[in-house]
Amino acid sequence: MTERVGDIGEFGLIARIREVLEAEGRLPPGAVLGLGDDAACFTPRPGCEILVTCDAMVEGRHFLAERTSARDLGRRAMVMNISDIGAMGGTPCYALVSLGLPARIPVAFVEDLYRGFLMELNPFSAGVFGGNLTSTNERLFIDITLIGEVRREHLMRRSTARAGDAILVTGYPGQAAGGLHLLVAGSAAPDLANHPLVRAYQLPRHRAREGREVARSGLASAMIDMSDGLLGDLGHICEQSGLGALLVQELLPVSDVLRAAALESRRDPFDWVLGDSDDYELILTCPSERVESLRALIHAVAGAAVSEVGRLTEAWAGIRIRRPDGSEGFSFPAGWDHFRRRGGGSQTG
Amino acid sequence: MTERVGDIGEFGLIARIREVLEAEGRLPPGAVLGLGDDAACFTPRPGCEILVTCDAMVEGRHFLAERTSARDLGRRAMVMNISDIGAMGGTPCYALVSLGLPARIPVAFVEDLYRGFLMELNPFSAGVFGGNLTSTNERLFIDITLIGEVRREHLMRRSTARAGDAILVTGYPGQAAGGLHLLVAGSAAPDLANHPLVRAYQLPRHRAREGREVARSGLASAMIDMSDGLLGDLGHICEQSGLGALLVQELLPVSDVLRAAALESRRDPFDWVLGDSDDYELILTCPSERVESLRALIHAVAGAAVSEVGRLTEAWAGIRIRRPDGSEGFSFPAGWDHFRRRGGGSQTG
Repeated sequence: MTERVGDIGEFGLIARIREVLEAEGRLPPGAVLGLGDDAACFTPRPGCEILVTCDAMVEGRHFLAERTSARDLGRRAMVMNISDIGAMGGTPCYALVSLGLPARIPVAFVEDLYRGFLMELNPFSAGVFGGNLTSTNERLFIDITLIGEVRREHLMRRSTARAGDAILVTGYPGQAAGGLHLLVAGSAAPDLANHPLVRAYQLPRHRAREGREVARSGLASAMIDMSDGLLGDLGHICEQSGLGALLVQELLPVSDVLRAAALESRRDPFDWVLGDSDDYELILTCPSERVESLRALIHAVAGAAVSEVGRLTEAWAGIRIRRPDGSEGFSFPAGWDHFRRRGGGSQTG
Repeated sequence: MTERVGDIGEFGLIARIREVLEAEGRLPPGAVLGLGDDAACFTPRPGCEILVTCDAMVEGRHFLAERTSARDLGRRAMVMNISDIGAMGGTPCYALVSLGLPARIPVAFVEDLYRGFLMELNPFSAGVFGGNLTSTNERLFIDITLIGEVRREHLMRRSTARAGDAILVTGYPGQAAGGLHLLVAGSAAPDLANHPLVRAYQLPRHRAREGREVARSGLASAMIDMSDGLLGDLGHICEQSGLGALLVQELLPVSDVLRAAALESRRDPFDWVLGDSDDYELILTCPSERVESLRALIHAVAGAAVSEVGRLTEAWAGIRIRRPDGSEGFSFPAGWDHFRRRGGGSQTG
């Protein structure tokens, strides 16, 4: 018989989580574990800024419990947060995990969820050092607060880009959007769960190591991770730096597998590359003479491809996209909210 | 027509929240606001430890949206977290608010929720500096991460009590439990919403200022705030300090209003005083010669009553309660989990 959360109660569950953390996790020296309703405590390192980010995932909205393994779900939830810390040049240190748990959830699911968290935290010697468990009536939710550190002089912002800077992206944005489409459309592709686009959606990678190296190098003028899609997050850089942008469509990286899936689905692959997609790739900006140094630096970390896709322009006036025939479209003429309300995607033309 | 969350979308809602925060909130110097999916950032003060706590509230479990005002709900959610920071001797600084919002929620409700947060944060010059908004299908949830600071030498723990120490409690524990009972039992009391016990449940106060002064004074050996009830939280001190406790029933503070409500409900008022109750009063321990100094110190902050209710004993063997007739009962002989699983309350006898 499957043991469920409702069978062992809050304190029983805390004990089980503690076992997983102690057996498989790490905790930076000086940190005091606070599970349940305790406050946790740590000593900040001199000369460092503290970074804090939180992201929540709700069953039925951000994941389907029956479509993903608990371990992948835990990894994905932590990757989202690690990516945010890395995009500011920081290193993840301490995670607080707040779970809303219906009684029907198997205890083994919760244990595997924490194993997923640890798989992503352990490589940074970061750990889960606190959190909260609460029972919910319906849907599981996972809310993670991740605390990181960054040396003051390495802190990366999105507001510090300059007109004329080159725009670089790592990897292949749009893979997750393509994967989500295949899942939602009920693609008949054989072994759908292991399709590379579906894997990119279920278990995206972060670029936190790349982000940290970029920050240490001082080569980039601004950096952000992609969780609102290429246009969305480039829009954040533009808006906060008071600039516009020109993207060149033929420079946008489209993977072969994305192109094939788009063809099969009769979709424009650039909708996925530009629109909402949880890829957690990085967008960087830098003076054009530093592009090759940055490319080499990032490639050295984990072999990531880096594409130069356009440049920043004077004054905030939306993002232009130059098509292969030389014509141009605006992605959003009237600000970001409108774009979002129209449902994402590349609103060019 | 009521404007609802579903009408204005995530970015529209962030803009509205930002307006409330900028007009009515404060932010410590050096902090960078990160709303939406940004990471927030702050510079820790030298010589300070960083405290982090999180607590979640779920609609239908921890509150009924139709029974409480958004402002009270926001205050209560923040009080829970402020109380945790204060019980460690710290000062609250930065809050991250993660909301799960069904589309039906009125925008004004969310704005008032933030006003409630700010009412509690402003007196500490603390502010909301980040968070996350996510849509949910059913129930509203509020998950707050609160970050505080405490000078290293003032950090209060629950594991540092000593055998023979006196046990003190502030205020009147059990008020919130009594209020919850009146609400759940559908009491016919006139103007139930303003009944002092119901108010104590809907809008408890924290003792963070008292906690900070206690920590600075160095007079107490251990401290904890009450969110699991007097027995529950005294149990945490005992367990983590490796001690037992003897409580004297006639020393337990019972307010007149609680006594009257118990009489009317045919309940034992000590069930409420000792059992599960979200009062956020403090439990302190100290050598007996310091009791009067601590009492005077705490009273000077905000006039809180302080009761000496018993003392700590050698070796962890549960909590004994001495009745007026001299007989004794054990609250839990076999550890905390069992007590909790039997549903809280004073399992004496």
